[in-house]
Amino acid sequence: MAEKKERVYPAKRLEQFVASVLVALGLPETDAKTCATRMIEADLRGVDTHGIFRLPPYCQRIRMKGMNLHPKVHTVRENAVTALVDGDNAMGHLVMTYATQLAIRKASESGLAWVGTRNGNHAGAGAVYSTMPLAHDMIGMYMTVANANHMAPWGGVELLLGTNPISFAIPAGKEPPVVLDIATTVSSYGKVKLAAKKGESIPVGWMIDRRGKPLTDPKRSAEGFLVPIGDYKGYGLNVVIGMLSGVLNGATFGRNVVDFNKDFVTPNNSGHMIFAMRVDNFQPVDTFKREMDRVIREIRESERMEGVDRIWLPGEIEYSRVKERLEKGIPIAPAVLEELQKLAAELKLSDRLD
Amino acid sequence: MAEKKERVYPAKRLEQFVASVLVALGLPETDAKTCATRMIEADLRGVDTHGIFRLPPYCQRIRMKGMNLHPKVHTVRENAVTALVDGDNAMGHLVMTYATQLAIRKASESGLAWVGTRNGNHAGAGAVYSTMPLAHDMIGMYMTVANANHMAPWGGVELLLGTNPISFAIPAGKEPPVVLDIATTVSSYGKVKLAAKKGESIPVGWMIDRRGKPLTDPKRSAEGFLVPIGDYKGYGLNVVIGMLSGVLNGATFGRNVVDFNKDFVTPNNSGHMIFAMRVDNFQPVDTFKREMDRVIREIRESERMEGVDRIWLPGEIEYSRVKERLEKGIPIAPAVLEELQKLAAELKLSDRLD
Repeated sequence: MAEKKERVYPAKRLEQFVASVLVALGLPETDAKTCATRMIEADLRGVDTHGIFRLPPYCQRIRMKGMNLHPKVHTVRENAVTALVDGDNAMGHLVMTYATQLAIRKASESGLAWVGTRNGNHAGAGAVYSTMPLAHDMIGMYMTVANANHMAPWGGVELLLGTNPISFAIPAGKEPPVVLDIATTVSSYGKVKLAAKKGESIPVGWMIDRRGKPLTDPKRSAEGFLVPIGDYKGYGLNVVIGMLSGVLNGATFGRNVVDFNKDFVTPNNSGHMIFAMRVDNFQPVDTFKREMDRVIREIRESERMEGVDRIWLPGEIEYSRVKERLEKGIPIAPAVLEELQKLAAELKLSDRLD
Repeated sequence: MAEKKERVYPAKRLEQFVASVLVALGLPETDAKTCATRMIEADLRGVDTHGIFRLPPYCQRIRMKGMNLHPKVHTVRENAVTALVDGDNAMGHLVMTYATQLAIRKASESGLAWVGTRNGNHAGAGAVYSTMPLAHDMIGMYMTVANANHMAPWGGVELLLGTNPISFAIPAGKEPPVVLDIATTVSSYGKVKLAAKKGESIPVGWMIDRRGKPLTDPKRSAEGFLVPIGDYKGYGLNVVIGMLSGVLNGATFGRNVVDFNKDFVTPNNSGHMIFAMRVDNFQPVDTFKREMDRVIREIRESERMEGVDRIWLPGEIEYSRVKERLEKGIPIAPAVLEELQKLAAELKLSDRLD
């Protein structure tokens, strides 16, 4: 049997495909389009695990009535610089689009804003939201509680913590903006599962077992836990992120997190936060951007280790990938394509990504 | 020769001692007292590397006219929720005390505030500042550019980056607040130097050499670099912290960082940031604190790894140490004591910590 090859589609075509799927499942057209845009933005950045790849499980949740198709995403409390948004169990992309736009609006008027959300769902890639303030010469920050627990507290064996990610975006001038988007675990659980599928072992440092020993056989992953970056340091950062994006908003964190890969019915009550801040609170925008360019170049052009072709700034690889994929299209892996085509057939869509 | 033993002093006595030293060197009495309080707060938390231990190098800088004894710490720009503070090359503790009080005042009135500082100096332990908002039922966040570069960009060999730390403080109810204070490197450079002194080797993962191989002989530390937590992830976080606390404020970051262990004359232009945010923007304080207590207990009381006595929340160890040291006093290591006594003798102080 010939191995299937990945296929490449223009971003716009994939966006339309995602929107059609969501509309067929009952989402209002504008909402479907917003979700599609946010998802494909992740694919454009090369964060293939957080874009269209997630459409099938989102659809499963919608079909099992685990998400609200006609939500009233609304602001529960607010002042000039903060807001608490209730997502009414909408698609996470809708909640976070609402929250991020609100943060940018408030920051435009007042200098900065912190918006927290509750009753949301998985919203895709963090950098999709943290980078939205960039166009307004603002710094962005994003945190969320991951939707499945694959990590134990430092010294513990109960799965109470997720990969809780944090993302920052800082504008530059002629250089690409500096964009960090990291889980606080060394590896994602997805990478572990992928290694298991391929029959490969995983590196020491990704997972530990119940006795704290390295676990390198990914088939045994259910017996162990992901390891936080910097051991107890990453554990601490992970907990802080969970408290600032979960507990502070009245969203889940810890034992009450719903595993979105296993339970497609219970509302996730997923919590997120987004922060936006104008650069010109501190410096004229041009001065700041010039200085950013200078330090970016200083780092990139500094002496490299033997065998290293290039020193990358955070987010630089993703920045070039957006350019490349806008031009050449987005590659879709065969297994993902198969699922998407199956979905399209079930929904009797005219576009089946043939 | 009998080995000297550590000695224990009441916090108040050490505070008075530090203040006397600084007054003898020409600091105004209120400024000296403020610096002393901030330094001993670090010792109380058990962050022995960032408290009184630093007094001799601070004094050396003062004597070499590397810091301004009569500074005008002032706000350069501000609005209701942000400020840029110029430290006028004052002791870092004065700049950060001013900035943190300003952030708390603004947050009390407006909900939150971000204050950046430039033209400052080393300010001791980050948690000393991030925890100041706690008493006002506020969350605190602190970042700074470290005052010496011991790390290279990921893939590079030039020392452009420091240990750039980040600290968060989140109030709880009956439980201790959650306080994280971490460098973004696996180890501090201080620990490496200590190992060299003791003739011990350092663990794989602390440092790498110019070829990216583990460096375990601390005597060779000048040939290598500290390793960021989570490899490229910690590198990215480190760079972001440097940009948000350095570049944004017009302070140093990268090649222009002054190595405060080697150069005691050139103004450091050290940059810091402090953020304070009221909890009741999002929830009634009591509700939030109850929920914090609940998740804290959930983590602490969750199942432990064999051989682990207790699961600690971030900052919990330091919290108990403050209690213990307020009661029993602060132990001072023999080598540190010797330096402090020498300093006292040189300055002809009446208190020589005999």
